[in-house]
Amino acid sequence: MRYVRSDDHRHHFPNGELYGGELVRPFECPERWDFIVEALHDRGFRDIVDPLPLDDVRLAAVHDPDYLQFLSTAWRQWTDAGFTNDALPTVFPARGMSQVCPEHIDGKLGYYAFALETAITAGTWRAATASAAIAQTAQKLVTGGDRAAFALCRPPGHHAAADLYGGYCFLNNAALAASGFLADGAERVAILDVDFHHGNGTQSIFYDRADVLVLSLHGDPRHEFPHFLGHADERGRGPGVGFNVNYPMAPGTPFPVWSEALTDACRRIGEHGPEAIVVSLGVDTFEGDPISSFELRADDFTTYGRMIGRLGLPTVYIMEGGYAVEEIGHNTVNVLTGHLEAG
Amino acid sequence: MRYVRSDDHRHHFPNGELYGGELVRPFECPERWDFIVEALHDRGFRDIVDPLPLDDVRLAAVHDPDYLQFLSTAWRQWTDAGFTNDALPTVFPARGMSQVCPEHIDGKLGYYAFALETAITAGTWRAATASAAIAQTAQKLVTGGDRAAFALCRPPGHHAAADLYGGYCFLNNAALAASGFLADGAERVAILDVDFHHGNGTQSIFYDRADVLVLSLHGDPRHEFPHFLGHADERGRGPGVGFNVNYPMAPGTPFPVWSEALTDACRRIGEHGPEAIVVSLGVDTFEGDPISSFELRADDFTTYGRMIGRLGLPTVYIMEGGYAVEEIGHNTVNVLTGHLEAG
Repeated sequence: MRYVRSDDHRHHFPNGELYGGELVRPFECPERWDFIVEALHDRGFRDIVDPLPLDDVRLAAVHDPDYLQFLSTAWRQWTDAGFTNDALPTVFPARGMSQVCPEHIDGKLGYYAFALETAITAGTWRAATASAAIAQTAQKLVTGGDRAAFALCRPPGHHAAADLYGGYCFLNNAALAASGFLADGAERVAILDVDFHHGNGTQSIFYDRADVLVLSLHGDPRHEFPHFLGHADERGRGPGVGFNVNYPMAPGTPFPVWSEALTDACRRIGEHGPEAIVVSLGVDTFEGDPISSFELRADDFTTYGRMIGRLGLPTVYIMEGGYAVEEIGHNTVNVLTGHLEAG
Repeated sequence: MRYVRSDDHRHHFPNGELYGGELVRPFECPERWDFIVEALHDRGFRDIVDPLPLDDVRLAAVHDPDYLQFLSTAWRQWTDAGFTNDALPTVFPARGMSQVCPEHIDGKLGYYAFALETAITAGTWRAATASAAIAQTAQKLVTGGDRAAFALCRPPGHHAAADLYGGYCFLNNAALAASGFLADGAERVAILDVDFHHGNGTQSIFYDRADVLVLSLHGDPRHEFPHFLGHADERGRGPGVGFNVNYPMAPGTPFPVWSEALTDACRRIGEHGPEAIVVSLGVDTFEGDPISSFELRADDFTTYGRMIGRLGLPTVYIMEGGYAVEEIGHNTVNVLTGHLEAG
């Protein structure tokens, strides 16, 4: 399995994220990438592909033009306003308030953000676009004939909606890969999101579409981030009804329960009959993850990689979350290895 | 003019507010109160009234029961979740997301908050309810025959909606005073908000009502907090159409321009014919205010106090914002003095 990576991720690493009422070192840190690269190398994944230039037209098919304009200029607007720290939003358009984007950067940040762990830095746009290019390139490899490819994206993407950032995500890498498959001729695609957190951005981007089946296994949003999407009754809208499937699970969920949900998800993917699948691969379901509450063990990642591999479909793995930094590499590679064993 | 105050405000003072991407000492600090008390004393306002106990029934007429339940238990829920710093929200129900309150305190904070300068501490509920009691008591003084009274509220209130906190505000003191006048027999009331920032909470609480005329002079929300309400085209809803009047003004607005808006507001108050008025008195329109951008000078506060006094109406002044700490006392008392000169 080839994998796509770029050092450009290092341009994004905020000084702090808001957690527990204080600014702490972000759990989403560059060493995550290092540990994954090391584990890939150690376990024989050495066929590295550099990302192709980002296809802006395809990016604009996933994200709103005003949002992209904002993200690409936010740092300049922030520093022009006299601020020197990383940019964090301070005020949000809550229910009953106007949903119109203000002109001052302080208001714009709150208009486009939904969460506070996701600061914008001088290098955020560069890193986010590089990450998006990695996802696009991995999709191209699979469209071109590879049975599977791994996009080592950082920053992650599945929380980013058409015009919202948050949850460490700015551009939705998985959505880009899925829409890339469609643009290159596929009629049906599935996105399987196994990150601990609900892929609210991915869900919202495809919520009224029947050609992209979106399935997400995650911590129940009543108890877990992102808190405001990911309920079981969110099934899609209009022609998309039935093509969004959420599997919210309680804190402490162990692998036997989790894997039952995955079995059901795989069955639904089979019924959908996609030409390709995109896996939003977060390994924060791991029992040792510092900000998640599932109980998967290292071997479970191999097991479920096999389950996905047995679908026998062209597959792009997109790196999402996982914050038990020292274990993230092996857990990630366990999934990829399991996939190859089944293939 | 009698004034109502309580030392209980000292129970609320968070360690930090999010500003410019970092946690800084809150601009809304206890010394504000000290400087106002000192200026009142120095200039002969020595008739101090202790607040009566808070009337919970009247509080529940302004704020939703679930919101009050949240505010009164938020600190306990936060510490039960293992957090030790002041409580700040991290994730918000943005557009397109579910508007259902989660069960975890992290989600609840984001559901009920709209801004990040407003941390909840161990003593927040005590201070906020004391501040509300002060407003209620001042209203009672005026209902009882005082021509005017000053409620030295801290924390302030005009940004708090029926079920939202932010902008340093938890309970809407001005709304409590206005609804108190109605409950005590008035048929029509007016709220005049002269704080630099739009009184979004007050507007939203009375937005569909014709008995409470709400007028606000403030920095244009396209450029200034709270960014998502306060536009000139927000005129009320249903029977309330025409009973909400916003005067958004550009950064750098000087007193001659500002006072033209006040003249128009006073004309509208006269047309409304209220039995009493509530003034949301923020003095952050002052030229030296660190987080505002109008250009009023100390004498201008006296001048506009006279303009309000010339309305000849029973008046409750409710303390709101003002962050040029050393000048806040004299600017506040200038308004009260101007009022008395006209009366």
